Amino acid sequence: MPLIVQKYGGTSVGDPDRIRAVAERVAETARAGNQVAVIVSAMSGETNALVALSKELGGEQPTPREYDVLVSTGEQKTIALLSMALHQIGVPARSFTGGQLGMLTTSAHSRARILEIDTARIRATLDAGAVAVVAGFQGVDAEGNITTLGRGGSDTSAVAVACALQADVCEIYTDVDGVYTTDPNMVSGARKLEKISYEEMLEMASLGAKVLQIRSVKFGMQYGVPIHVRSSFAPDEGTWVLPEEDVMERLVVSGVTCNKGEAKIRVRSVKDAPGVAAGLFGPLSEAGIVVDMIIQNLSQDGTTDMTFTVPRDDCRRALEITESVAPALGAAEVIGDEDVAKVSVVGLGMKDHAGVAARMFQVLAAEGINIQLISTSEIKISVVVQEKYAELAVRALHASLVEEGTLETAEA
Amino acid sequence: MPLIVQKYGGTSVGDPDRIRAVAERVAETARAGNQVAVIVSAMSGETNALVALSKELGGEQPTPREYDVLVSTGEQKTIALLSMALHQIGVPARSFTGGQLGMLTTSAHSRARILEIDTARIRATLDAGAVAVVAGFQGVDAEGNITTLGRGGSDTSAVAVACALQADVCEIYTDVDGVYTTDPNMVSGARKLEKISYEEMLEMASLGAKVLQIRSVKFGMQYGVPIHVRSSFAPDEGTWVLPEEDVMERLVVSGVTCNKGEAKIRVRSVKDAPGVAAGLFGPLSEAGIVVDMIIQNLSQDGTTDMTFTVPRDDCRRALEITESVAPALGAAEVIGDEDVAKVSVVGLGMKDHAGVAARMFQVLAAEGINIQLISTSEIKISVVVQEKYAELAVRALHASLVEEGTLETAEA
Repeated sequence: MPLIVQKYGGTSVGDPDRIRAVAERVAETARAGNQVAVIVSAMSGETNALVALSKELGGEQPTPREYDVLVSTGEQKTIALLSMALHQIGVPARSFTGGQLGMLTTSAHSRARILEIDTARIRATLDAGAVAVVAGFQGVDAEGNITTLGRGGSDTSAVAVACALQADVCEIYTDVDGVYTTDPNMVSGARKLEKISYEEMLEMASLGAKVLQIRSVKFGMQYGVPIHVRSSFAPDEGTWVLPEEDVMERLVVSGVTCNKGEAKIRVRSVKDAPGVAAGLFGPLSEAGIVVDMIIQNLSQDGTTDMTFTVPRDDCRRALEITESVAPALGAAEVIGDEDVAKVSVVGLGMKDHAGVAARMFQVLAAEGINIQLISTSEIKISVVVQEKYAELAVRALHASLVEEGTLETAEA
Repeated sequence: MPLIVQKYGGTSVGDPDRIRAVAERVAETARAGNQVAVIVSAMSGETNALVALSKELGGEQPTPREYDVLVSTGEQKTIALLSMALHQIGVPARSFTGGQLGMLTTSAHSRARILEIDTARIRATLDAGAVAVVAGFQGVDAEGNITTLGRGGSDTSAVAVACALQADVCEIYTDVDGVYTTDPNMVSGARKLEKISYEEMLEMASLGAKVLQIRSVKFGMQYGVPIHVRSSFAPDEGTWVLPEEDVMERLVVSGVTCNKGEAKIRVRSVKDAPGVAAGLFGPLSEAGIVVDMIIQNLSQDGTTDMTFTVPRDDCRRALEITESVAPALGAAEVIGDEDVAKVSVVGLGMKDHAGVAARMFQVLAAEGINIQLISTSEIKISVVVQEKYAELAVRALHASLVEEGTLETAEA
């Protein structure tokens, strides 16, 4: 009997009517002859309300252990309510908290990583003909403390459960109907992808497409479980995230993304000597700041410019740290700039098509958009531009590389 | 070092300000050189909101297992928030859900009974100099399913934890400042008791005084842990619930209670033969209906009248069951009556004072109140009267037996 794992996000279970609709969908899937495990998020708004309470009583830095005890109640509510709703329509169901499931994680509160899933209780539930309803986002550490995976972690829970159960598919139900070539709110020509490879999805998730959590894509890729991103509110097929070899229509560029959540820091005239990069990025890393792009200019007169990007929320702290180490690096000046956006194009076909970067630069130049930084990987090119040009850049790149470029598939 | 268990009810933790006030109170207790374990209820309103959600999705009879998964989130929220608030004022604290604590219960969802408490984790927390913050009302069964003790079960959790830890005292913080001789809203002469015996408290709790859960008093009595009922909002001493020998001032009557939550059922002219009572009360018990008072009239012509009381909420079901068995018992008629109230006087001194019942009947007669049923125990006399006379009966009995009767103590 096929085993399907379904994940419903916060908006999909946002009120009692929607929970009932989810129950109907789960019931249909079960009645069609599938074993079904369902992973749910907290009802939309619930987590924000809990976070607000925690700020009120725990301040800006509430006790990490207690924060997780608090926010994990959100998903616990949903599993109980969905199980009740399933019972009401005659479908046997059984709920599981992270602890009851045996979702073992690291002890890093609010950003725990899944170590192991004990599937015995879910298997027993499925084999008894019932639906297993699992709280996403949460687990327990080896000491039995409640942990959470960080926001959006329910995707990761779902794919991890699907992998542990060797499910036939992990369906991610959400408020959009699939993965688009770019943000449809920004570009009218955006189109839904039927299929996309794990690798492309990973790049797109990293670059700001919010449809799937990065770690969930990594799990799916590692264990080869197909992920199907689709709408909670419509019956249509969404987008399948699959191994590269199963994605037939290899677009040169399958997506254009935009991320306005970064900031740029430039360190002028540092000594061009061994140890300088370590002296700068060591302290940033210790402060838990994730540096994204790093560009070092060609050296002139024994000095060089070093420019990097960090999450905009961390920009002030990153500037302070950079300024504190700047004298030791012989730097002339540290300049922060939040007026930037990162625009990227992603596509498996870029492996075989050398011309994409050149074409990208031509398109941007034709629009008069200055490129501040460039960074590339095998299937991605990112550029940093002034923020006000971000939409224009996305639209122009999408028109040229996706809408016109569809002819130029790898098969062609 | 003295070990104090404190329990704060829903109104005491009803909003963030009150949770902060509780944290201050706990901090004071800890700083005064005590080990402190705190048991908390859900924030007031929270449980009602969860119950409303469960009705919406699970109907009038939501899946019992899932109902407990749902409502237990209320207390889980409070333990996290109180622990955060304690951290904020520099008091180390650690929260425990029923499952984390090892509060082992029966599997009877929503009315589970505590079987065993594993105190190791609380002890370790207290010995490490931290406050243990425990979710009241909840536990787990042997299979790890979440259970709840039924409404008001946090009192029971608190006293059970105090007993398991052999605490020096279990303080029950509530929105009243102690146990009164009668309802102060009804009788202006009501006064707060300094001390009351477990036995009296048990009778008063059974008879409708809502200040303490019956099972919690039983635990305290069984393990000899003093219970101190006091106000969350004032520093004054409340009422101590103690072994009989520690209650010095033995009032003849220490309390007058009133319960309007019962209904009376009369079965007329049943056969006066062996097996008749079993034929009637057996089916009621199987239906989970708790029968309180049972009165059988003297037999006449081989038939007798049987009258009993049941919770008013169960009256309709009890009537149906009684009517269904009535023919087999040869009953002439079944008559239900919800227009009743039970008024009771309780006092340890009644053991030695034979005249209380007579005086009680005199007082009621003088007010022109007809007594419908009478039931007595060693330290209690209850009468059923027409509901409209309930307040009058309470006021008259309190005036005569408590206010005037204080002179007539057992020492006198």
